[in-house]
Amino acid sequence: MYPKSIQKLIEIFSRFPTVGPRTAGRFVFYLLKLSDGEMNELIAALQGLKKEIKQCSFCFNSFEAADDEQKTGLCAICRDNTRDQALLCIVEKESDLETLEKTKQYRGRYFILGGVNDILKKEGIQNIKAQELKDRMAGAIQEIILALNPTTEGEATVLYLERLLAPYGKKITRLGRGLPVGGELEYADEETLRSALEGRR
Amino acid sequence: MYPKSIQKLIEIFSRFPTVGPRTAGRFVFYLLKLSDGEMNELIAALQGLKKEIKQCSFCFNSFEAADDEQKTGLCAICRDNTRDQALLCIVEKESDLETLEKTKQYRGRYFILGGVNDILKKEGIQNIKAQELKDRMAGAIQEIILALNPTTEGEATVLYLERLLAPYGKKITRLGRGLPVGGELEYADEETLRSALEGRR
Repeated sequence: MYPKSIQKLIEIFSRFPTVGPRTAGRFVFYLLKLSDGEMNELIAALQGLKKEIKQCSFCFNSFEAADDEQKTGLCAICRDNTRDQALLCIVEKESDLETLEKTKQYRGRYFILGGVNDILKKEGIQNIKAQELKDRMAGAIQEIILALNPTTEGEATVLYLERLLAPYGKKITRLGRGLPVGGELEYADEETLRSALEGRR
Repeated sequence: MYPKSIQKLIEIFSRFPTVGPRTAGRFVFYLLKLSDGEMNELIAALQGLKKEIKQCSFCFNSFEAADDEQKTGLCAICRDNTRDQALLCIVEKESDLETLEKTKQYRGRYFILGGVNDILKKEGIQNIKAQELKDRMAGAIQEIILALNPTTEGEATVLYLERLLAPYGKKITRLGRGLPVGGELEYADEETLRSALEGRR
């Protein structure tokens, strides 16, 4: 049996996404080999995380609390008046927002759903910020872009959101489907090819 | 771009074994969702790790510092006088020691090498506690069991250790090779089958 403090940390790391007990063990032995300076760096970064990071009250994106000089509670994207207030792009998670921002192609605002409709789990819909999303509908929004993953869960979430938002009469669109740029026709699956044919221009 | 404190933590987690930047990002967003209590639990466990864990001065195994009432600097295994002092089992890492201990078949002592001879990397041999191992040879040890992984690196380490320890004239053995219990002949590779034939009894 490992010493108690090692077991405790293995247990905590095992709750991290994608981490099982074996990987958690490797993390702990890696940490045991760190210098005091490196360990303190990790602890300080963890302590700073919650203190320095705020969640945007509009889109739920994370942002540096220090940047919010005017105490608006809004992230840099939502504070930016030059962005198109008529567009709202709905993503599952923060990293999807980051990926879209990197393209520099979208100039509207976002809404982070916090989850997808996992049809295999009962609690699936509860993870979605449905009420918060409905609250956003009162504003200047004209078009809602559902930028969810082209997976079963993503599709189920699209259907769920379309029904949820129907009463507000906004235009609802989805990201285009087709062949990924740089991909080869040979390796594309049937569903992607069907979408590529339908979306031809 | 993610806020600075998120980027910093992604950078630190990316140094963990098996973790890339994408997984590190998932860790950080998982942590952002934790309650204050859960975050403090993680920080306390990390702070406790180095304080509460000592490394055995003989075998380099980790042990609870509080267990060392007599301040021997030795882990519970090395402190146990009923264990056979004539046997020394050399393992690569702490989890290998744990795996062997669970079998309850071995009653000697251990030595954690801290690495293997990675023939593809120049620094391979430097990670191995070679001098410390040689220092252990002065004692009552009669047989050295090389319990390294049956991999290229493990084999290279066995050859390296056999040469390193030859001058001390101890008996050097390795773990038996053959079919894993519960495995099927059909799925065994050629090398395993050859070992199984050679080791038949």
